[in-house]
Amino acid sequence: MMQTLQNDRLIRAAFRQPVDRAPVWMMRQAGRYLPEYRAVRGQTDFLTLCKTPELAAEVSLQPYDILGVDAVIMFSDILIPVEAMGMELELIESKGPVFHTPIRTAEQIEQLIIPDPTEKTPYALDTIRLLRKQLNNAVPLIGFAGAPFTLASYMVEGGTSKNFAELKKMMYSAPRLLHQLLDKLAETITIYLNAKIEAGAQVVQLFDTWAGELSPQAYAEFALPYEQKIFAGLKREGIPAIMYINGCGNILEQMATTGADVLSIDWRIDIGDARRRLDAAGFGNLSLQGNLDPCILLGTQETIAASVRDILQKAGPVGHIMNLGHGILPMVPVENARTFIDTVKSNQ
Amino acid sequence: MMQTLQNDRLIRAAFRQPVDRAPVWMMRQAGRYLPEYRAVRGQTDFLTLCKTPELAAEVSLQPYDILGVDAVIMFSDILIPVEAMGMELELIESKGPVFHTPIRTAEQIEQLIIPDPTEKTPYALDTIRLLRKQLNNAVPLIGFAGAPFTLASYMVEGGTSKNFAELKKMMYSAPRLLHQLLDKLAETITIYLNAKIEAGAQVVQLFDTWAGELSPQAYAEFALPYEQKIFAGLKREGIPAIMYINGCGNILEQMATTGADVLSIDWRIDIGDARRRLDAAGFGNLSLQGNLDPCILLGTQETIAASVRDILQKAGPVGHIMNLGHGILPMVPVENARTFIDTVKSNQ
Repeated sequence: MMQTLQNDRLIRAAFRQPVDRAPVWMMRQAGRYLPEYRAVRGQTDFLTLCKTPELAAEVSLQPYDILGVDAVIMFSDILIPVEAMGMELELIESKGPVFHTPIRTAEQIEQLIIPDPTEKTPYALDTIRLLRKQLNNAVPLIGFAGAPFTLASYMVEGGTSKNFAELKKMMYSAPRLLHQLLDKLAETITIYLNAKIEAGAQVVQLFDTWAGELSPQAYAEFALPYEQKIFAGLKREGIPAIMYINGCGNILEQMATTGADVLSIDWRIDIGDARRRLDAAGFGNLSLQGNLDPCILLGTQETIAASVRDILQKAGPVGHIMNLGHGILPMVPVENARTFIDTVKSNQ
Repeated sequence: MMQTLQNDRLIRAAFRQPVDRAPVWMMRQAGRYLPEYRAVRGQTDFLTLCKTPELAAEVSLQPYDILGVDAVIMFSDILIPVEAMGMELELIESKGPVFHTPIRTAEQIEQLIIPDPTEKTPYALDTIRLLRKQLNNAVPLIGFAGAPFTLASYMVEGGTSKNFAELKKMMYSAPRLLHQLLDKLAETITIYLNAKIEAGAQVVQLFDTWAGELSPQAYAEFALPYEQKIFAGLKREGIPAIMYINGCGNILEQMATTGADVLSIDWRIDIGDARRRLDAAGFGNLSLQGNLDPCILLGTQETIAASVRDILQKAGPVGHIMNLGHGILPMVPVENARTFIDTVKSNQ
């Protein structure tokens, strides 16, 4: 597969092979900071956009066409497979997702189905097939999914949360119930990601965005085993796997055991320290992705360029995919995103 | 001073002197989880409660009377001195603070005054004097303040924030402006805490709650120097100083240089690891406070007791003040808070 890609930097960096420069893309790069995205989005609601392959493919390609990133990530939402499990989902982009009937009982968990992606979310696979055709092997196409702990947080809380109090209440008072839910999610996501790979995804990224809110002990019990289960269940020869956790600094060595090839880290940890810790713990074979604070893209061009060069230097020339530490914010000026991308590209 | 206290465990633990058991209290222990607090609060608004010494003292003493904690913290809010600097503050307890005119310009910063606490916030000092009289040296009285970075976050954002985008925009596009604000805040808080010590506070705790949202580099530039400045400016012989940061795992060794005697840590880092890291970095002289996940108090009695004993064992018998990793949540059942306190007390 790699031979066929015109730009295979991301694949090579993920597997720690030599590259002329670090590959670069941005989490949430198909998003509201782009006027072209807002133009498409203005004519349709968020869920319809996710579910219409032509539109989803169009916005997925925008950051490639406009900014020249080294990878395209298919436009979707981590809660799409959760809706397919049988939960009624409302997505208000500016407010976040809402489940009007949050999960609280064993009966509710039993009623959730493990969806067949070809039947329940065919649009996601069609989007991938369409994007592969349109990309014509220019750059790799990333497919993604949310990890069980993070998906469960939305399902139990009923939406976004500040303290994850409902989820943790279940965790610390009915742990077996939560494990039942996490098990079902792990199976769903394994099938879902395998279907994406089969449809043509050339890289997979698993988002356990909120797992950094856990104590290291709780992470080991309620998040890590399910991340491991998913990576172990993927049919992914030659397909690099990326694991993202926001706030991963305290659990980096645990995260290194998920089975991913690349750890995508947030900005709260120095990437040079992360590299040294991984090497010291026997994980010199893993690559790193990240880790610019997304808010630095609200700063001056000079600050952005200097911060990017600092990260590139600290991460070293091998095994690094440049990215933000979290998704790009809607209020970022496009020229600042361009400075981010261009600084990486000129750093050879 | 210590000789006069009937229960001086917290002072002794802060200075790494032998204790029969770890002292215990809870951040936000005078709060909405207590029906007795809600009864007082139901008759007055939050700011009036802060500004009325008799009422503030009454709710401050409730957790001591009801749960038997080893220290009393005076009821107040970190934004009280900010209001005294000349910013109009609205405090809605369930929603958080609101500044209707957030700080964005040099002119606004110049207009802020450095308030004289005896003149502008006499009620805070009166509350301390009243509490000292009512406590009659039973347990130590803690005075507290917010640190400049965290206070600036509310002043620039105009309230609570998810990404701190406005604050970081200033940080990365107009750093000198932010430094001006932080300087003025450091001076204000130094004077404010010294006045509290003079009024009778026997322990001080500085809250830089949101400094864990910064990259280690940004912490070193925008938070740490101001924390250091405050601790260096306190007249505090025999008065232990506690430094709290939520999400401090990546900056623990930097935090150890603030000048505080005790580092109060959140639950995302294993307290045994924190102890080992401090010892390895030459900070074996510092004590630790924390670090139970506040959400564990939503779990079963068994889970609470087991989690408390695990932390006590990992922290070791010397130099540990038991506490939560963040403030107690309003929905915690009082009997669960009691289990937390009683488990510590029975662990001799």
